[in-house]
Amino acid sequence: MAGMNTFTSPEFSASDHHYMNLALREAARGLYSTSPNPRVGCVIVKDGKVVGRGAHLRAGEPHAEVHALRMAGGQAAGADAYVTLEPCSHFGRTPPCADALVKAGVRRVVAAMQDPNPLVSGSGLKRLSTHGIEVAYGLLEHEARELNAGFISRMTRQRPWVRSKIAASLDGKTGLNNGQSKWITGPSARQHVQQWRAQSCAILTGVGTVLADDPMLTVRDVTLLQQRHGVQPWRVIVDSQLRTPPAAATLQAGRVLIAHAASLPVQEKALRDAGAELIAMPGPSGRVDLEALLHALAQRQINDVMVEAGARLNGSLLYGGLVDELLLYYAPVLLGGGARDMFTMPALQEMQQKIQLHALDFRQVGADWFVRAKPVK
Amino acid sequence: MAGMNTFTSPEFSASDHHYMNLALREAARGLYSTSPNPRVGCVIVKDGKVVGRGAHLRAGEPHAEVHALRMAGGQAAGADAYVTLEPCSHFGRTPPCADALVKAGVRRVVAAMQDPNPLVSGSGLKRLSTHGIEVAYGLLEHEARELNAGFISRMTRQRPWVRSKIAASLDGKTGLNNGQSKWITGPSARQHVQQWRAQSCAILTGVGTVLADDPMLTVRDVTLLQQRHGVQPWRVIVDSQLRTPPAAATLQAGRVLIAHAASLPVQEKALRDAGAELIAMPGPSGRVDLEALLHALAQRQINDVMVEAGARLNGSLLYGGLVDELLLYYAPVLLGGGARDMFTMPALQEMQQKIQLHALDFRQVGADWFVRAKPVK
Repeated sequence: MAGMNTFTSPEFSASDHHYMNLALREAARGLYSTSPNPRVGCVIVKDGKVVGRGAHLRAGEPHAEVHALRMAGGQAAGADAYVTLEPCSHFGRTPPCADALVKAGVRRVVAAMQDPNPLVSGSGLKRLSTHGIEVAYGLLEHEARELNAGFISRMTRQRPWVRSKIAASLDGKTGLNNGQSKWITGPSARQHVQQWRAQSCAILTGVGTVLADDPMLTVRDVTLLQQRHGVQPWRVIVDSQLRTPPAAATLQAGRVLIAHAASLPVQEKALRDAGAELIAMPGPSGRVDLEALLHALAQRQINDVMVEAGARLNGSLLYGGLVDELLLYYAPVLLGGGARDMFTMPALQEMQQKIQLHALDFRQVGADWFVRAKPVK
Repeated sequence: MAGMNTFTSPEFSASDHHYMNLALREAARGLYSTSPNPRVGCVIVKDGKVVGRGAHLRAGEPHAEVHALRMAGGQAAGADAYVTLEPCSHFGRTPPCADALVKAGVRRVVAAMQDPNPLVSGSGLKRLSTHGIEVAYGLLEHEARELNAGFISRMTRQRPWVRSKIAASLDGKTGLNNGQSKWITGPSARQHVQQWRAQSCAILTGVGTVLADDPMLTVRDVTLLQQRHGVQPWRVIVDSQLRTPPAAATLQAGRVLIAHAASLPVQEKALRDAGAELIAMPGPSGRVDLEALLHALAQRQINDVMVEAGARLNGSLLYGGLVDELLLYYAPVLLGGGARDMFTMPALQEMQQKIQLHALDFRQVGADWFVRAKPVK
């Protein structure tokens, strides 16, 4: 936030908080549909009344500010606008929102956060300020960042936000040693997982999971899929040796990307014929370079990746520092030592090497428990 | 409860619930001190006012009813008495409470539960009923049973109530493979554990834990120890081959019982000289017979056993169906596969064999999470 402090109000009022919360609620309407764009909401307030509100809902369609200004009409003159992201100042598929706010004659613009794109960050607020509009930012910024973790990650780190979802027993086991793993957690947890899937641009899995369970890894909830305009998330399979069967269930739903390390023309052709895209990402010791893969996904405008994989891929991602968030579901059961672990990793030698987590959420979901946490890096 | 239904009121009023809750709160005052007796509370109510209340606090001292009747004095005549356990009808170290209630002229007695001892169950209520006192039981019975799970278990199953306490990472690991395990959970969880220890008649551990960590396994909290009148819980070590070092820290605090399988006169003498009691409990394949050990502990009037052990003993107890309750503390950390499991057990072959748990409690304790659950048998 350095350099832009001139725009930061030292304090926001209670009503500022109230209206920004409304704007965040607007933004959340785009949770399942704005990708690859960020989720943005806008609320316009005149004389203590909300006169306009809007959300960006889909790439190519109007931005949140435009919807809200349209609703406000002439009442926007002299009004306060609350936006969850700094208004854009550049021509994209739509004209700059900063110009629209200027033209409408708003008195003050409060943004939850600046544009995360370092190339344009601050320029929208500056444009508003130049036209005599009072500007401030940083109100409920944490909440605004949560809503767009994927977009922000892609803009600032050129890689997606990676969430590893794991369902386990209370003794940390994901399945029996013989591979049986289905239905550890209950229907409420599975529905919860559908919501995470529906928020994701891609589901990342490993060939081991494909071979063992042959999962679809699609959004099955009809309402959620409608909100995504019927478009399934990409499924990305980490498959160094291209062992994915062309008849795998997940390939039947389209939008499958297979990341491989070896060059195997026959398998490549068979998988391409089955509709998959292939991407060669050779890394050390014949394995897929996971970090390079994530960068490649970001280049394909993928913001949010959800990992639904076994201990091997989850362990590699975690140990490689590539997991941004853990979505852990615990069923009230025990499977006992000898069953499958959550993470395959080199053994730690010192307790100081333990992976510390920062808990974000912790709640009961049906008969199961849900923990959302970030590895502390 | 069969056979005693004549005493069950079909409905209890809101004020009945209120007063029984007060009586349960009284009973809880004895949480750390009544062993081997049950925790019992009594409240006497006359004309909508509490005129007497009392708790049983220590074996040999007056029962709850006696304290409450003393406080009520003449006001007990025509009053209602709420007791968390059926009043006794036999002469023990103190005269029967049923007689005292009759003598005081109470109008009605409500018990949360009948005496769990099958030999005397119902006889106290019957004695009251014979003297024209209105009796009812079964009000807040679940809560009353929770408070005396150990005593009830000893009376009905001739074995203690066994609680396994385990501190683990969120991936179900209790320590590194090299044995490092200290301070997985934080200070609040450790204080919480002190409360469980202080409620226990005995702490059960394995020789592996003694050799690896040399723990004291005592109540260190001064206030809790005072409530126990300075008496530490028994520490019981499962040690088939008598490998416990006579200099082990836990032996220095006295009240140590070592359960062994092999006959090893030299080691036996050394450990006896160090102050330990020994009990031979040979089971199949040279190991200690855990079920027989629990029965032996019950014979020594041990109600509540807390297991603080490693994966081997915890696994054996769990697999043997001998764990009544799990006290699971999870720290927001990950240790990764290869680290130590919570339970060593034969691998399950079918998901239907999973050990289903019934959750009793689930809460945050400092930065950690606490799950209390019962294996469903």
